[in-house]
Amino acid sequence: MPKISKKGNGMPASPIRKLTPYAEQAKHEGKKVYHLNIGQPDIDTPQVMMDAIRSVDFDVWAYTQSEGTESYRTKLAEYYNRAGYNVDAGDILVTSGASEAIVIAMQSCLDPGDEVIIPEPFYANYSAFAWMSSAVIKPVLSFIETGFALPPVSEFEKLITAKTKAIFICNPNNPSGYLYSYEELVELKKLCLKYDLYLFADEAYREFCYDGNKFYSPMHLEGLDDHVIVFDSISKRYSACGARIGCFVTKNKRVLSTALKFAQARLSPGMVDQIAAEAGTDTPESYFEVVNKEYTERRDLLVQALNKMEGVFCPNPKGAFYVVARLPVDDTEKFCQWVLEKFSYDNETVMMAPAAGFYCTEGAGRDEVRLAYVLNKEDLAKAMICLEKALIEYPGRVVKGETETLKEEVRI
Amino acid sequence: MPKISKKGNGMPASPIRKLTPYAEQAKHEGKKVYHLNIGQPDIDTPQVMMDAIRSVDFDVWAYTQSEGTESYRTKLAEYYNRAGYNVDAGDILVTSGASEAIVIAMQSCLDPGDEVIIPEPFYANYSAFAWMSSAVIKPVLSFIETGFALPPVSEFEKLITAKTKAIFICNPNNPSGYLYSYEELVELKKLCLKYDLYLFADEAYREFCYDGNKFYSPMHLEGLDDHVIVFDSISKRYSACGARIGCFVTKNKRVLSTALKFAQARLSPGMVDQIAAEAGTDTPESYFEVVNKEYTERRDLLVQALNKMEGVFCPNPKGAFYVVARLPVDDTEKFCQWVLEKFSYDNETVMMAPAAGFYCTEGAGRDEVRLAYVLNKEDLAKAMICLEKALIEYPGRVVKGETETLKEEVRI
Repeated sequence: MPKISKKGNGMPASPIRKLTPYAEQAKHEGKKVYHLNIGQPDIDTPQVMMDAIRSVDFDVWAYTQSEGTESYRTKLAEYYNRAGYNVDAGDILVTSGASEAIVIAMQSCLDPGDEVIIPEPFYANYSAFAWMSSAVIKPVLSFIETGFALPPVSEFEKLITAKTKAIFICNPNNPSGYLYSYEELVELKKLCLKYDLYLFADEAYREFCYDGNKFYSPMHLEGLDDHVIVFDSISKRYSACGARIGCFVTKNKRVLSTALKFAQARLSPGMVDQIAAEAGTDTPESYFEVVNKEYTERRDLLVQALNKMEGVFCPNPKGAFYVVARLPVDDTEKFCQWVLEKFSYDNETVMMAPAAGFYCTEGAGRDEVRLAYVLNKEDLAKAMICLEKALIEYPGRVVKGETETLKEEVRI
Repeated sequence: MPKISKKGNGMPASPIRKLTPYAEQAKHEGKKVYHLNIGQPDIDTPQVMMDAIRSVDFDVWAYTQSEGTESYRTKLAEYYNRAGYNVDAGDILVTSGASEAIVIAMQSCLDPGDEVIIPEPFYANYSAFAWMSSAVIKPVLSFIETGFALPPVSEFEKLITAKTKAIFICNPNNPSGYLYSYEELVELKKLCLKYDLYLFADEAYREFCYDGNKFYSPMHLEGLDDHVIVFDSISKRYSACGARIGCFVTKNKRVLSTALKFAQARLSPGMVDQIAAEAGTDTPESYFEVVNKEYTERRDLLVQALNKMEGVFCPNPKGAFYVVARLPVDDTEKFCQWVLEKFSYDNETVMMAPAAGFYCTEGAGRDEVRLAYVLNKEDLAKAMICLEKALIEYPGRVVKGETETLKEEVRI
């Protein structure tokens, strides 16, 4: 039998989906499973997009331009300009989700062995994308104690070598929900200018900022045009994960023309998906108001419920729809499996993502889980009851002393 | 300014699109340009697919399974089984076009420096996909004199080294239109078994076989289950290039589970696109009959018109919707540009793909062009008149003696 490549063997499996067989088994046994493990929103896709799909009118379902349709890119530029980005259609490459945008950026900017510095915990698939490009991720630890704020620039600086080509942030952050401040972005700007690095910014959760906090992008910074590449997606913004429409935004023309070669090789993004995405740019402001109110309430419910549990600590994040919580257990990989396999309360249980998969530092995040608040409040509340009961029953329970002090600091 | 990677700088630009600025300029000057350069069919997408799009019914446009929806893969397996493949849904991974399937296969089966043997001329983007995986293409020349038949197996064997991991065919072939015979596939089977190689088969043009010729796939061969990976696409089959739905079919479970890791990293193929593709599997047989009759007539028109031109030779291919023709010119790259830039007849001109972009052997195909017959017969006839006039006027005209003899052999 012909061999699998080392590249194929070493490709990391998705840690978010690793527990799926146990969840399937639990369902098979008749348990109800609350899915807090995956960022698939339950929010309705905007009506303008549904209408656009249902009224498509063409004879031939043709390729579009490799960079995306002119009309969609024009509307997208208007969307970004409303957010103060100062871009035009020519600065945008439409991609198949943010995933493709990230892969194209890594291939365009990093050679095998080149390094990209990423604050961790980070979205697990970045490891897969780096692996595909033979690029190397150098993680900078951020900490639950500070709500996963940007680590001091000195920590990044320690890691910079001749091979460092980029710094990569996700803002608002998946998995931590952390929203970077303007000042933090300015710190990163200085670093990128000093060492001539790219600044990659995954902004898939741009619309999800809470408590009146404002979103800032590296696109808002002066003098960084040649350095910034923004990755974006309509998956979360319009609850349209299945549309597979993202994009790549940069004012660096050499990067864009290089990226276009990769885009041309795969011909074009989806045509109907772009039609719907274009309609999505007309989603009324009221849609986002309703959605953000809903997410804020869910976050409040989740954060309060978690911090009420003995030995649990959860910061109160300002963005995205995830939290990373510390649990009083020996190892969350074991605990999350145990919850699905051995536990139920009222014939219900909960699926969570062990946080170790979001770290590359060995041993980090072993007592943390990522929870996505993509369920309605009633289900979220029930999931929290399950979790509380499970933590009491779990044989590997370990309580750390500092947790209660941390909670005091978080409480408003 | 941060640097572009070597990977990005070296990424080959699409040779099919290279002449686009000249075509744009010609249009700008008011010339009508007949596009024979790109495989975008003008055939209507089946009504069942349009109906499926227009009646989508969901609240949340969600991710599907990374491997594609169970229901689409089930229908797709039925489609393949009607073609005698003996597969089930579990042998299929739905991808974003055949392009993604090829990239995933290269990453799963080839490490940097590993070699894949491909008969040339071949679809130009294979070079891009190999480059992205740092794999090396070893071309085996096929010749216009034999209609681009499979070169003798001994020619493949000469190229096999410890680094050779796969043989890659496109059947029916893009760009040559050549349809591989059962016997030729058996020859490749022996080679793959002898040297333990993968056999990659791009079958995007499976439905386009003419003159009563039957299509054979490596999937029809016994004892090759662990070796064969088929790449497929609905782009041409249902004239749905803009749907970006392809797939990866193999009975090798280790390959499939490796490929799934790459598929999981990019989350999912498009959901609406899969709904439409699933409906497409119910396209009535009459659709293909009408389409194939139309393409046969176009091919006949094209091949006859080309061979009537002095110094032009074009084989009569049995599949796909391309021909590769030899032209009496010094260099088709120069000629194709000249036709757009300096020539017009009745204020019309023609855009063709110089064949050199489909070869990796230096200097090969310099007197050949690829023509796609994706225009109606009236336009095709006009395009042929343009071409004939252009060949007479072109200053770099060079007639080779052997052409007329070749035509004699082709004439029915």
